[in-house]
Amino acid sequence: MTVEEIVSGNRLALARAATRVENREADDLLKQLFPHSGRAQVLGITGPPGAGKSTLVDQLTLGYRADGKTVAIVAIDPSSPFSGGAILGDRIRMLRHHDDPEVFIRSMATRGTLGGLAAATSDMALLLDAAGFDIVIIETVGVGQDEVEIARIAPVSVVVLVPGMGDDVQAIKAGLLEIADLFVINKADQDGAERLERELHQAEFSTPVVKTVASEGRGIDELRAAIAALPQRKLTAERWKRRLAEMIRERLMERLSLKELDSAAEEVSQRRRDPYSIVHEFIDRHFGERLRD
Amino acid sequence: MTVEEIVSGNRLALARAATRVENREADDLLKQLFPHSGRAQVLGITGPPGAGKSTLVDQLTLGYRADGKTVAIVAIDPSSPFSGGAILGDRIRMLRHHDDPEVFIRSMATRGTLGGLAAATSDMALLLDAAGFDIVIIETVGVGQDEVEIARIAPVSVVVLVPGMGDDVQAIKAGLLEIADLFVINKADQDGAERLERELHQAEFSTPVVKTVASEGRGIDELRAAIAALPQRKLTAERWKRRLAEMIRERLMERLSLKELDSAAEEVSQRRRDPYSIVHEFIDRHFGERLRD
Repeated sequence: MTVEEIVSGNRLALARAATRVENREADDLLKQLFPHSGRAQVLGITGPPGAGKSTLVDQLTLGYRADGKTVAIVAIDPSSPFSGGAILGDRIRMLRHHDDPEVFIRSMATRGTLGGLAAATSDMALLLDAAGFDIVIIETVGVGQDEVEIARIAPVSVVVLVPGMGDDVQAIKAGLLEIADLFVINKADQDGAERLERELHQAEFSTPVVKTVASEGRGIDELRAAIAALPQRKLTAERWKRRLAEMIRERLMERLSLKELDSAAEEVSQRRRDPYSIVHEFIDRHFGERLRD
Repeated sequence: MTVEEIVSGNRLALARAATRVENREADDLLKQLFPHSGRAQVLGITGPPGAGKSTLVDQLTLGYRADGKTVAIVAIDPSSPFSGGAILGDRIRMLRHHDDPEVFIRSMATRGTLGGLAAATSDMALLLDAAGFDIVIIETVGVGQDEVEIARIAPVSVVVLVPGMGDDVQAIKAGLLEIADLFVINKADQDGAERLERELHQAEFSTPVVKTVASEGRGIDELRAAIAALPQRKLTAERWKRRLAEMIRERLMERLSLKELDSAAEEVSQRRRDPYSIVHEFIDRHFGERLRD
């Protein structure tokens, strides 16, 4: 596929490019696509499991489509490092939008243990942006460190919460408070929605809060209006810095060969050597003087 | 503090060492502690928010204490990168075990964006192991990539699920299936517990499943028995390899200065340069020939 094909909306070329991004072999292509990017509204949608993110993304998509906007969805799938397959929710969703060529859905597989989820996700968003989609939605399933990082390097981060999820959600809420550009209280017809709204306002006075009942399509127009009204809707220099750091981190790690760790791991497990000396030696051997303590 | 103080059970020395591990300045200390480690049973406890992990860990702790075993708990707190504080649940828990000097609880703060959560967690577990605790429990709150990685490098990974949590949990379950040494179905008095048990048995025939109602203390003895009966209860060479890789990844990243990314990020945000060229240049400058494509 060529840059021209992708930019002109060729879906087959796009799908191939997306695979190349997933395989982390797309730097040259992305470099050429960069000048064509920067037009899309890129949204990160994050929140705890059970908050109804998929339904919300579906409803948002329908709303944007009704306005004539094209939509691409990147679903970050925590099962991917292991199974590589699309999750149940995605399969249902793909079926629903199957006939609409202006909705592109990609389940994002990660390559396992060495990270790079955030960098790969940003690259995918850049590709879809350059391919001409008006709206690019990045939907995460988990709520760990990586998801927080993805949210941090998205131009706009929407954090979805639901009333009454207890202590765990308190903690998650605390972790996500500072990265949210906008809060959604979904399932807002349930007990505790008002209290949650008050808590959010107290914690982060200036961050807008929108209440939705996504399963019934309620509050979705208000959410789109709130997104459109955000003062900052493109990636700032500060977020670009984080994104550059993520890119560097990923590219360094993919150059390390774990093969030579085999015998070292064996020695440590038999307690013949300590892991700390091995790590220092490894770094010394591969990265030399430059990084010596 | 000295290695002797830590190994002999001096709690003040331990607390200071834990802070040093959190600050990632403990390599020399850990190197000396390594020969004293390897006696503790280290358990990773992972699962989606709302699964009742904290209650389960509390009950497990009471059970181990009744057997006269000492217990250390490391709570991985997703809010830490931002707030640095202990989460609500931890504070409650610390209050409960406050009078028991044989229970040590540490909320693990991470240092923000550049990862290293899994490496820091392993180091903390090694410290507590060397300090003489019989049981070291690592409890994660989130269910993202990092939590999966923590579970992967724990000697024994207990995955806690609850009945009826929908599609999101399906996905998480899929992601955690292959790393679980043991499944707990908590809140097993709720509808759907039997179905979940059948699903787990179908997916991973050989992984034991224990049902608990942690809030009532039910199934906890069975869980401890199941943990004790696991064939593999120490870190294997394969898991040591992952852990070494995590350690290397973290130590490389902490040597990078993000300061010099400031002006680069500015240029990218103004679209004067593309991020991919900048990243390649940066790696070239810092890591030179060794890593050139």
